[in-house]
Formats: sequence, structure tokens, C-alpha cells
Amino acid sequence: MEKRTELYRGKAKTVFTTDNPERLILQFRNDTSAFDGEKVEQLERKGMVNNKFNNFIMAKLEAAGIPTQLDKVLSETETLVKKLDMIPVECVIRNFAAGSLVRRLGVTEGQALNPPTFEQFLKNDALHDPLINESLAISFGWATAEQLAQMKALTFKVNDVLLKLFDDAGMLLVDFKLEFGVDGDGQIVLGDEFSPDGCRLWDKETRKKLDKDRFRQGLGGVVEAYEEVAARLGVPL
Amino acid sequence: MEKRTELYRGKAKTVFTTDNPERLILQFRNDTSAFDGEKVEQLERKGMVNNKFNNFIMAKLEAAGIPTQLDKVLSETETLVKKLDMIPVECVIRNFAAGSLVRRLGVTEGQALNPPTFEQFLKNDALHDPLINESLAISFGWATAEQLAQMKALTFKVNDVLLKLFDDAGMLLVDFKLEFGVDGDGQIVLGDEFSPDGCRLWDKETRKKLDKDRFRQGLGGVVEAYEEVAARLGVPL
Repeated sequence: MEKRTELYRGKAKTVFTTDNPERLILQFRNDTSAFDGEKVEQLERKGMVNNKFNNFIMAKLEAAGIPTQLDKVLSETETLVKKLDMIPVECVIRNFAAGSLVRRLGVTEGQALNPPTFEQFLKNDALHDPLINESLAISFGWATAEQLAQMKALTFKVNDVLLKLFDDAGMLLVDFKLEFGVDGDGQIVLGDEFSPDGCRLWDKETRKKLDKDRFRQGLGGVVEAYEEVAARLGVPL
Repeated sequence: MEKRTELYRGKAKTVFTTDNPERLILQFRNDTSAFDGEKVEQLERKGMVNNKFNNFIMAKLEAAGIPTQLDKVLSETETLVKKLDMIPVECVIRNFAAGSLVRRLGVTEGQALNPPTFEQFLKNDALHDPLINESLAISFGWATAEQLAQMKALTFKVNDVLLKLFDDAGMLLVDFKLEFGVDGDGQIVLGDEFSPDGCRLWDKETRKKLDKDRFRQGLGGVVEAYEEVAARLGVPL
């Protein structure tokens, strides 16, 4: 399967059409961005690491019964995926307080959240991905009540699977963001990616940050941290 | 019943204790504030108008079966109310897009919202009353799931009653904010106030603003507009 035209260039991935109208190719680039694209750098190996990491996680989620867009790995940085009609509502679960939650609500970083919190953000760069809720999503037609309920249930299921996966490898899954789409049969399917670009992972003992906060906060060793996470999980790089 | 000590001084009302531990006195002041207290002015007669307006609306809501804190009017600017343990979650329903919704989501002012939207904000001046959701309120202990469900149901019931009340008087109820508390029996009761300070009202034909946006936007005639709303509803001033 070969890339045809560029469909969409995101901040870290490019999406291409293929000869099959039901398949797309995701190309993971080395571009690393933060603060709505204000800070951008090229980080050697990141595209490859995130592509392999994402495929590893998506396969684990598929095995746990969560429908994902993953079809097959094509190269070091490219993966063939099912074409989805993406829903512009990002789903976030937090097991510990960090990031925007700390700034918005004045809570302490690292505070355990019991039960884990669930938030929905509108995927819209120009508006800086504002927090929304189900009522707004329904009234503005971004998703139906049924879709939102399925996305929420799937996000909590992902949390159950991945909390354990990372815990077994000595890491805390602090928070993560998922995006979903609708496939040709109208089924809600997990799309986009799961990588240290879109979640927070801390070492369980030292709470060392092993995710994109290393880039956001200028801590250095960004890709090295991603590679450490991959090694701990047994992702073949 | 007389005022004892000042319990809390808000931006437009002062709350006093009384000799009865189950009763408080609300004093409606002429202070008018916007933008988290950045813009403050004294507007002649506003305390009186809002006190009478609030009592009129609360009585209508009580008659419709919504429990409110209203006990009895004491003077032009003072009302005796039941003491509630206030829940720091503001409930907002919007029938038309305006205000912060337009800024946050880039939608058009005046767009009809179908169904009306429901939002929850954390009552916290220092954090600028951030948008939250049920999950955050539960995890941080601001309210229980059961309290949030009751508050939401009551807010929609208030919308049903007041949409009709204002419509019959030639006005659109664009949006409004409610605050609730828990009484001595653990019941959820409508507290705070309902006045043109905390809602948006437009003339049905001309869409002339008849609420605090006249103050926020420097349109003038603020109290005159409140008095016009009161006159149309038949509130005795």
C-alpha cells in the first residue's frame, strides 16, 4: 500500500490517502511541538519511536476488546490504518493531577484523583482546545449523546488496561488523551495515537517524568525517556 | 429579625447572621461589578430593584415546586433567607449563545441553542470561575453525584418556568446562572439570587439588552433596563 495525496498535516503526524478508500497511512514525523505549536523542534528518532510505541499499545488495546484503527505497520515511521470520520472531541482521563488541570483549578501536581477524572476538549487549535462538556458537544453537533457515552466508556476501559500495563513496568499513567472516530459501519473506533506525546508517565518510585513534559519544560532527554518507556514495556525498537 | 455579624461580603450582596442560626439576611447593595471585580460602580436604586426582582422570581419558582431559600422580605434592600451550606458549583443554562461561550467556542452571539446547553463553573474568584464538569466536581469533593443530578434537574425546571415567564413579557431569557446549597435536612435548595445581574435578557423583537451586559459593555441605562424588565413582569418597585 502506497501513499497517494497528503490529506492532513498535523503537528507530529501526516495523514495520506491510499488506493484503498477505506485505508489511510499515518506518517509519524520527528516534529515535536508544545503550547499550540509555539515551541517546535525536530527530535531525532521520535517519529520511529512513537510509531512503534503506538502500534504496540494499539495492539494491546485491540486484544482487550477496544476497537482501534490499527491495520498494519508499513515501515519504521508509517502505519496503515482504517479511515475514520474523526469526532472533534478529545477525551482525557487523569489518575493524578498535572498540566492544565493544575493551572485551571489551582490543585497540587501529583495529587491522586479518586475517582479518576474525565474531561472532554474541543479539538480546535485556533481556540486552544477549550474544555467542553457533553451538553455543549450535543447542542453544537460535535457528537451525539450515544457516541459520547461510548467514547467515555471506552476511555475508562483504556485506562483500566493501561494503568496495569504501565504499573507492571514501574510507571504511573498520570493522564492521557484519546481521539475517536466513526468507521464505515457507524462504530466508534479509537483513532489518532497513543504515545508519550499525548499522555503523562512518571517513574513509580522517583516520579521522574518520562513524557512530553520533558520537552514542554525543557528538561532534556526527551526521546531517551520515550525509549526508556518503550524498553520497560518490551516494545521492540 | 435583625442583622448581627457580617458573614460574607460578596460583590453585590452582603450576608449577615441573625439571632436565628437557621436564618441569614441578604443585603442587596448598589455595587455593580464585572470582569471579576475589575470594573466596579455604584448604581443608584440597583440594590432595591434586585432585591424586589429576586423576591418576585423566587416566589414564582417556589410556586412551581422549586425549593428556594426565600423566607421573607425585610426592607427595600434586605431579605431574610434560610441558611444553606452553599455548593461552590454554579449551574448555567443557555438558550442562546452569548458572553463567555461566544469567546471560548467561537460561535455567533444570538445563535439559538438546541437543546439549551448546561454548564458548571467552579465558584472561585481567584481562578476566575473556571468551567468544570461533573467528574471534576465529584473527584475534588465539591458536590456528590446525587447533588449534581438534582441541581441539573432543578436548573432545567427553572429554565422551563422562566422562559415562559419572560416570553409572556416580550423577553428572551438568553442564559442564567444559579447557585444551590444544602439545607438542614440535606435538601438541595436554590440560593443566592436571580436578577438581571446573573442572567441575560433581550427584548424579543429588537434584541435590546436588558441585563448586566449594559454595564459590562458600557451601554448605559443599566438600572433603567432592570426597572423596565421589572415593569414588564409586574414586579412592584
